[in-house]
Amino acid sequence: MRVFIAGIDGYLGWSLSQYLTTRGHEVAGCDTFLRRKCVEEVGSQSATPIVTMAKRLIAFKEKYKKDLLFKEGDLQNYEFILSFFKEFQPEAIVHLAEIPSAPYSMIDVHHATFTQINNVIGTLNMMYAMKEVCPQAHLVKLGTMGEYGTPNIDIPEGFFTIEYRGRTDTLMFPRQAGSWYHQTKVHDSNNIILACKIWGMRSTDIMQGVVFGTRIDEMGDDERFLSRFDFDECFGTAINRYCAEAVIGQPLTPFGKGNQKRGFLPLRDSMQCLTIAINNPPKPGEYRTFNQFEELYTVNQLAEMVKKVGDEFDLNVKIDNIENPRMEMEEHYYNPDHRHLLHLGYQPTHDVEHEMRIMIKDLMKYKNRIEEKREVLIPEVRWDGTKRKSKSLKDVKG
Amino acid sequence: MRVFIAGIDGYLGWSLSQYLTTRGHEVAGCDTFLRRKCVEEVGSQSATPIVTMAKRLIAFKEKYKKDLLFKEGDLQNYEFILSFFKEFQPEAIVHLAEIPSAPYSMIDVHHATFTQINNVIGTLNMMYAMKEVCPQAHLVKLGTMGEYGTPNIDIPEGFFTIEYRGRTDTLMFPRQAGSWYHQTKVHDSNNIILACKIWGMRSTDIMQGVVFGTRIDEMGDDERFLSRFDFDECFGTAINRYCAEAVIGQPLTPFGKGNQKRGFLPLRDSMQCLTIAINNPPKPGEYRTFNQFEELYTVNQLAEMVKKVGDEFDLNVKIDNIENPRMEMEEHYYNPDHRHLLHLGYQPTHDVEHEMRIMIKDLMKYKNRIEEKREVLIPEVRWDGTKRKSKSLKDVKG
Repeated sequence: MRVFIAGIDGYLGWSLSQYLTTRGHEVAGCDTFLRRKCVEEVGSQSATPIVTMAKRLIAFKEKYKKDLLFKEGDLQNYEFILSFFKEFQPEAIVHLAEIPSAPYSMIDVHHATFTQINNVIGTLNMMYAMKEVCPQAHLVKLGTMGEYGTPNIDIPEGFFTIEYRGRTDTLMFPRQAGSWYHQTKVHDSNNIILACKIWGMRSTDIMQGVVFGTRIDEMGDDERFLSRFDFDECFGTAINRYCAEAVIGQPLTPFGKGNQKRGFLPLRDSMQCLTIAINNPPKPGEYRTFNQFEELYTVNQLAEMVKKVGDEFDLNVKIDNIENPRMEMEEHYYNPDHRHLLHLGYQPTHDVEHEMRIMIKDLMKYKNRIEEKREVLIPEVRWDGTKRKSKSLKDVKG
Repeated sequence: MRVFIAGIDGYLGWSLSQYLTTRGHEVAGCDTFLRRKCVEEVGSQSATPIVTMAKRLIAFKEKYKKDLLFKEGDLQNYEFILSFFKEFQPEAIVHLAEIPSAPYSMIDVHHATFTQINNVIGTLNMMYAMKEVCPQAHLVKLGTMGEYGTPNIDIPEGFFTIEYRGRTDTLMFPRQAGSWYHQTKVHDSNNIILACKIWGMRSTDIMQGVVFGTRIDEMGDDERFLSRFDFDECFGTAINRYCAEAVIGQPLTPFGKGNQKRGFLPLRDSMQCLTIAINNPPKPGEYRTFNQFEELYTVNQLAEMVKKVGDEFDLNVKIDNIENPRMEMEEHYYNPDHRHLLHLGYQPTHDVEHEMRIMIKDLMKYKNRIEEKREVLIPEVRWDGTKRKSKSLKDVKG
């Protein structure tokens, strides 16, 4: 199948291009290298020493004996994406080209508005280009489990049937996103539902859990195939940050009480799930939601697991919960459904500790790159609009 | 109270500045005259011969013996709104500065993205400026009943308590907006809920029904106080368009079967309701929703009422349902709550026919201005992305 990947230079995008090519798909993609710029802006770098896209393309051709059709460009530029679609004629479009950071969006008004424009308008432009060029193509759109927030009731996959005052309807499950970034994903979902309804577009909206991991098997030993690995407060996610902390001998830093529960999945499972979505498109006009995660953990539980695995490597890992820069519930009910992908054959990686072993082994090689930027591990962007480094809870009164 | 009106040059804005000043409030406001430009862009004009803002300000000073603090500027410009708030120190902010047209947003990708950026980012900038300058101020934000769509169950005011799989929570009622424009209002509501939650902002989110009318009593006989009155397919609403059609002897044109049911209220009631919201602010951190309309009618019922009133003026009014350019249900359940404003003392104008008499009398004076632009009365912007004039249902097979 001809699969277009928007955001092909990113953590998921570069991995997915290899995963899909290995499985016989023809891949093209675009990127404007925004993630590289944003990570630099917040004073950090990828732990893995990622090469330029030019070098990635050379490595790709050497390994797969064919070109990857890549163009540098921005989804804010409608003419760019329109003409790229005309050239490639995609059958599936995987949209990974959004700013994925809650803290980045909370820095100030400029980062809030930039994130909302970048994400929402990028998706709108892409949908209009699809309508114009390839109305039968399938939009696989990366959303987040964070769209749902933490309601006190079970979370269905996208829609639920409710009885209210004696009547019944099936409606979108109410969203309660907790940052300007998470709100962009809610706005996108609403816009995509409308496009499916009025244009007959087909879309899978992925409510993805928190992804972790340094590699997929396809990357092998050639560093040019490694994907980025961020550990800063803006672009690093929980497990990835804990593993980076473990490797440089810094205590792991769950936020607040640490009983926030979330869904998680390894990078390899994210690839598997996206591929299942691509291989099983919905009907024209159908909008469907996949809650994409494997297991639920609290961030404290994950820190304990990283500690256990780190100690196997004699890293003598400590855990030190710090002030929570976010506004979120630290004790809450959480029970999201995740059946749709399992029905389509998703085979989850259950052994999280095995994955953590691979990560720590990989990251040991790049310990210096993490140490160079170690100050970005402690968050300072607060949800109340201020900026100050989170302290250890042990040092905070009250 | 010091009340800031964003969009003070508009249909509601100019009316509200008079309504509030008469009642002792101190008013300031901004506008970038976008509505005037958009109406010109779609080839139309206000039926009422509105004067420039400069002349409005002179008339205002003559009548009220004080200046209205006005600045031309755009909410897209954060520094502009920030410095204006610093100067005026508003206690309440009424946000009427959004593009209010579904068809305008559906013209093409450029109008879709322009509408979403203009509305969503304008509101975000305004909220950040409030947080910076006047965090205790009250944001009265104009939304639309169209956020809800037409679910098959009752529509509460904003939130509802539901039981699901044996557990209970109170959540935002699911939205099903039917155009890119209506989606902006949903996006805004989501963003405002977050600002109230994380910053303790207070806000009233007005789900307003369709407003109609040519005047409020405060305008008197001085044409300089008249507000605009649009009748084109983009910026004219149902009753206003029917009255314009009646005056020039053109058949009234309900869309499709005409059994679409909506909430309506006259301009004078919109002013009354906004003022009630201003005078009764919510608590810090509180986000509340008012469903702001008086009565429910189908668009066919309204056409019949305009016909009856028009015939009193010997206008010999015909009704000719035309192809529906929108994608919407033409037969549906519709039962929204609207209790909050009544609890706070809203006294609705029940006599819609009386209001229509005033409208037709007013519009007879400007019959030529409507005739000059009569071709804009028949819609051509289709929800499927094409453009073609709607025909009479009598002339359409099937």
